[in-house]
Amino acid sequence: MIRISIDAMGGDHGAGVVIPALAAVSVRRPDIRFIIFGREEVVRPELTKFPELARVSEFVHCDVAIQMDDKPSQALRHGRGTSSMWNAIEAVKNGEADACISAGNTGALMAMAKFCLRSMANVGRPAIAAIWPNLRSESVVLDVGATIGADARQLVDFAMLGAGMARALFGIERPSVGLLNVGVEEIKGQEDVKEAGRILREAELSSLDYRGFVEGDDIGKGTVDVVVTEGFSGNIALKTAEGTARQIAGYLKAAMGRTLMARIGYMFARGAFRQLREKMDVSRSNGGVFLGLNGIVVKSHGGADSAGFSAAVELGYDMVRNRLLERVQADINLFHANNPQDDPQDAPQNGVIQTTVVQTAEKG
Amino acid sequence: MIRISIDAMGGDHGAGVVIPALAAVSVRRPDIRFIIFGREEVVRPELTKFPELARVSEFVHCDVAIQMDDKPSQALRHGRGTSSMWNAIEAVKNGEADACISAGNTGALMAMAKFCLRSMANVGRPAIAAIWPNLRSESVVLDVGATIGADARQLVDFAMLGAGMARALFGIERPSVGLLNVGVEEIKGQEDVKEAGRILREAELSSLDYRGFVEGDDIGKGTVDVVVTEGFSGNIALKTAEGTARQIAGYLKAAMGRTLMARIGYMFARGAFRQLREKMDVSRSNGGVFLGLNGIVVKSHGGADSAGFSAAVELGYDMVRNRLLERVQADINLFHANNPQDDPQDAPQNGVIQTTVVQTAEKG
Repeated sequence: MIRISIDAMGGDHGAGVVIPALAAVSVRRPDIRFIIFGREEVVRPELTKFPELARVSEFVHCDVAIQMDDKPSQALRHGRGTSSMWNAIEAVKNGEADACISAGNTGALMAMAKFCLRSMANVGRPAIAAIWPNLRSESVVLDVGATIGADARQLVDFAMLGAGMARALFGIERPSVGLLNVGVEEIKGQEDVKEAGRILREAELSSLDYRGFVEGDDIGKGTVDVVVTEGFSGNIALKTAEGTARQIAGYLKAAMGRTLMARIGYMFARGAFRQLREKMDVSRSNGGVFLGLNGIVVKSHGGADSAGFSAAVELGYDMVRNRLLERVQADINLFHANNPQDDPQDAPQNGVIQTTVVQTAEKG
Repeated sequence: MIRISIDAMGGDHGAGVVIPALAAVSVRRPDIRFIIFGREEVVRPELTKFPELARVSEFVHCDVAIQMDDKPSQALRHGRGTSSMWNAIEAVKNGEADACISAGNTGALMAMAKFCLRSMANVGRPAIAAIWPNLRSESVVLDVGATIGADARQLVDFAMLGAGMARALFGIERPSVGLLNVGVEEIKGQEDVKEAGRILREAELSSLDYRGFVEGDDIGKGTVDVVVTEGFSGNIALKTAEGTARQIAGYLKAAMGRTLMARIGYMFARGAFRQLREKMDVSRSNGGVFLGLNGIVVKSHGGADSAGFSAAVELGYDMVRNRLLERVQADINLFHANNPQDDPQDAPQNGVIQTTVVQTAEKG
């Protein structure tokens, strides 16, 4: 049985989207159980519409709902202990749930998750990982905005965390990993990226297949299963790709309406266009995953519909079923046992709240 | 009369693409004159095919052709004084040409351009600017890979340089400028980006309209005319957008071939698809422009066809005609007169060759 805790108050649409999503997942995954946190008067009426879901769920009333524009520090101050977000995370800490899903405020969710769950042993800081569709299939890209900047050891952590996620989700035993850089020659790029490349090359890890540097266009190609970068570049890459997808969708729409012939063509090819729209829809590969914490937290896109929220829940489910955390922790511990000199220098910072978390998924 | 010096040996296709491109431009721009540098036995046979072009061109033989995989330091060592690339740049320095165009090795071109032309007065280091198509029209994005990292003052320089280019190319008297960041709230992002934002806000420049932070998806939207960032993020954004455009083109092709109905639809809408392909073709908005040097150097895409190389030549032509350099230098001098305390600390480095230049345009 896999138990998922749900913050039902997050996202642009709240319980009206979350509860139908859970109902859909519970049909597809008979071994799933939910603990749903939220305001009674909002969640209960939705839940009564889905008696099958209610049977596999426990509902817990929480007074506070974190707002999408709350600052992380604000959210922690007034939402610690009292909010649906906090309680959903704490359920993971207490062992009542195996993973937590929220469509709420990214910054608040990360701040609470860090405070409540703390970083995994031997991991300097957490990262937000995105699932990125590419021409081959999908890849994991991290960090897409948990923090700005990362030193070499943190990039190596991200490589191991991302590889663990790729293994759990894509079923690849030894995922290929690339470090995002500007040019494939070894002499180029930031010192931290180069140093991380050296460590990964020399470590010859059994858990991942380090392939060297990759460039921005390798993400769309699917050159590697896992693309590692720090949160500033990663967030800019993610948002730029989203922007480009919308831009091309705009061009396509304009082109198909311009002439009579194009409009006739569009009518014939409607089905194909629908499929294309689904492929291009960034919210479908939904969910930023917080990696590097003592617990699985999935951030669903704030604007996600029920199908999108379902995808985020199934993402959490798959990671639990594949024992993501245990396996990643084992990889990381093994690496540290073999590379004691590379221990992170900011380990004492674990659990300290920093409000540098980027709002990756609030827009659009 | 506008005089353009041409490195005819650069790019994947060399003189066979360059010379027909010049011929096409010379028809459209009767006031243009070329000085063409290259190997006699390669360039002369091409040039004789276009007698009209030969009449407005001077040809100068050069022994050395810089190879696409030469390292910048190598290229400088064996190509200084002898190569078509060097001589094309030097023609600008000597006042024989108003701008230089090359489809050659980006790193070598930047190293030679820095060494030969030196940085503009009061500019810490040069940047490579890209013209980026967006849903509204086009924007200037810089730095897309001249160097990695930039401090606040360098970002401010880039803002003034990019605004000058937008004014020259798009005819906007006071271009809007945004700093690329991860989130629009003032508290977020790198210290250098924040500090650059403070300087730009307080300077209230007449040459540009500073609009604050923008995110990756604002580039495709066309939120501002000029997007400023340092070379690492800028290069990753550019390459990621290129990769996403190719990825979606791949999806589109697959979708239109999947069913009979889709194939019929494609036939009707063929003209629309052709237009779309042109819009999505990254090599059409061709040319990375080197800004911040005492001379205009345009880097054409290495894989560009004749139409692409023509576009790069016309870009150089437009910037000369609009007196880009003089106007930008005036803006920058005025800013420095008003903000003496913000003078760049690395000014003594001007002209020192660094081989950190990123090969932005060699691939694909």
